[in-house]
Amino acid sequence: MRDVWIAGAGMTRVGRRTEGLRDLMAEAAHAALATASIERPDAIVVAAMNPEEFLGDGNFASNVATHLGFADVPTIRIETATSSGAAGFYAGFAQVAAGLARRVLVVGGEKMTHLPTPRVSELIGRSIDPYERSYGATMPALAGLVTRALMARQPIGEREISQVSVKNHAHAARNPYAHFREPVSLERVMSSRMVADPLRLLHCCPISDGAAAVVLTAERTPVRVAGIGQGTDTLAIRHRYDLTSFRATQAAARAAFAMAGFGPARVDFAEVHDAFAPFELISLEDLGLVPPGKAVRATMHGETALDGRLPINPSGGLKARGHPLAATGLAQLVECVWQLTGRAEGRQVDGRVALAHSIGGLATNNWVTILESA
Amino acid sequence: MRDVWIAGAGMTRVGRRTEGLRDLMAEAAHAALATASIERPDAIVVAAMNPEEFLGDGNFASNVATHLGFADVPTIRIETATSSGAAGFYAGFAQVAAGLARRVLVVGGEKMTHLPTPRVSELIGRSIDPYERSYGATMPALAGLVTRALMARQPIGEREISQVSVKNHAHAARNPYAHFREPVSLERVMSSRMVADPLRLLHCCPISDGAAAVVLTAERTPVRVAGIGQGTDTLAIRHRYDLTSFRATQAAARAAFAMAGFGPARVDFAEVHDAFAPFELISLEDLGLVPPGKAVRATMHGETALDGRLPINPSGGLKARGHPLAATGLAQLVECVWQLTGRAEGRQVDGRVALAHSIGGLATNNWVTILESA
Repeated sequence: MRDVWIAGAGMTRVGRRTEGLRDLMAEAAHAALATASIERPDAIVVAAMNPEEFLGDGNFASNVATHLGFADVPTIRIETATSSGAAGFYAGFAQVAAGLARRVLVVGGEKMTHLPTPRVSELIGRSIDPYERSYGATMPALAGLVTRALMARQPIGEREISQVSVKNHAHAARNPYAHFREPVSLERVMSSRMVADPLRLLHCCPISDGAAAVVLTAERTPVRVAGIGQGTDTLAIRHRYDLTSFRATQAAARAAFAMAGFGPARVDFAEVHDAFAPFELISLEDLGLVPPGKAVRATMHGETALDGRLPINPSGGLKARGHPLAATGLAQLVECVWQLTGRAEGRQVDGRVALAHSIGGLATNNWVTILESA
Repeated sequence: MRDVWIAGAGMTRVGRRTEGLRDLMAEAAHAALATASIERPDAIVVAAMNPEEFLGDGNFASNVATHLGFADVPTIRIETATSSGAAGFYAGFAQVAAGLARRVLVVGGEKMTHLPTPRVSELIGRSIDPYERSYGATMPALAGLVTRALMARQPIGEREISQVSVKNHAHAARNPYAHFREPVSLERVMSSRMVADPLRLLHCCPISDGAAAVVLTAERTPVRVAGIGQGTDTLAIRHRYDLTSFRATQAAARAAFAMAGFGPARVDFAEVHDAFAPFELISLEDLGLVPPGKAVRATMHGETALDGRLPINPSGGLKARGHPLAATGLAQLVECVWQLTGRAEGRQVDGRVALAHSIGGLATNNWVTILESA
């Protein structure tokens, strides 16, 4: 299997955008191609979760490739719910690793803010097991259930969960690409309105528009893809043995570290899927970045802050950079590339090994990608 | 790049099915795994064009993997409109060729017949360029336009186009998996009701439900994937230089034959994307299977019939086996595997090299896959 490198990375500002998704994807894609000094890729992978219902447009890979000016470049679309961006990265990686293409553009994005929130919630809810959905389960409702189970098992209260939001908003305040640029206080998080007990508004990621892109290549660059792993779990959460850790994350991490040939101790910083603040605590342990039961302590002691021992979500995470669904897995990798190459002005962290962690659905289809600077 | 082989193939009967799509996919997948003597794949690729709108279900890769009993097997979804099955095959191929997985199950399918025909037409129409769609263009309308252009350029009349339908229905009559099992006469085709001038009902594929699956492996089996190629074109047909040949097919064929290391003369039989009967004539020439301008002659002289020199669509093709969208690209390959291994009872043709050709959208994202018996 050939080594795969990242030649370029780019993304749009995340937030409430007025442009169409094709324009957002074009902005991200052309930024990635420009930093890669590549005019034309050999292949394109498009990640989008549900452009059919968000926008009324299908055949979206051809739609985007044509709009980019690359109608004659082979293109496919990849979807694994909210981790579609990470899955698209894997599909591009496989093509380069196999020698089927030398330069692959992977671009992902979503446009949702033009729709009413209940409609967005309904469309995201299609990721939930149909039987559980039939009883009214929504993504925040299931996340609330997971959080209650976590609080029953570990000494985790509202304050601990809220500290994740405070930290990630503080990071996003330094990120010009983030949806939210203002810091929030612990008090403000803890007094924000209840969404799905015990989760409050400021424990949940926003509905965001945006796009992100990377260019993968078989030629050596400063950033190598050291490992990539996928993990899956049952669609229905009632079929799981454990609600307070995600088997899909654990399996993805095992596979990614096995490919990398080293363990979590080598990771210097990470972008972690904090669609709901407590998921960052669960994921830190599932990924092996902190020992079991120690995520709260690491968070409360500032170890996961920008100036801590192990910065988590320097971008602001899904919570504060925002979560434009299929853009997110790629936006995490863009942030890792920028950090590894010293281009994260205002929020720069040190390190040679970065990890990105993306959750699809309610942890049914998760990815871990490890990047290493050469 | 590693050689990739086909270890197993299976499909459902195509037609108006009462089962859900997950059940259809399970039937096809377990049939493919059984013929491969494989209990558990390393990875799963799910091809589905639009389960969100046809069924209201998303996160479909996890949904299907869980239903199959493989919740812990990594899975991704691939979509390239009506060629999604062929694209899924390519994604599985890339994983095996790269050494990322040894045994990949690729399963594709669609369930549409429970919806009213105008709604199906609207959903399939999402594949069309939004501007052209805004003027009322549907897939049959654009195919009618292409057909009129073809008839203006070549000596092709209604009789010639209709003969493709007659031939493919005759083939399907021998295929227990086909949607339509009855032969049709030239007169019946030519007097069927007009759908989109000059295309009549019996020039158009039906709306079908069904699923198909193959197992790809790095281990030697009787059938090798000799070549695989993708070709693309502008989403909008108004941006094309030529309406009467498909650049996407030509590019896909060039790439597939380049990988195979031989040319079209070695192809013994083919499954060709005849969603509309004249597309078979266009495609035979685009693929290089007959010289330019000779497709009509080959068809009228019986060369493309089951007992002809170059049997085309021994399964009955999209026209008569049926076109369950994301199943189709895989169903073509299942037919090729069955033919190459002597398991196409009642419609068996001779040959060692088979070609499958799949069109995505209105020829925006096409695939050519070449299989060779060892």
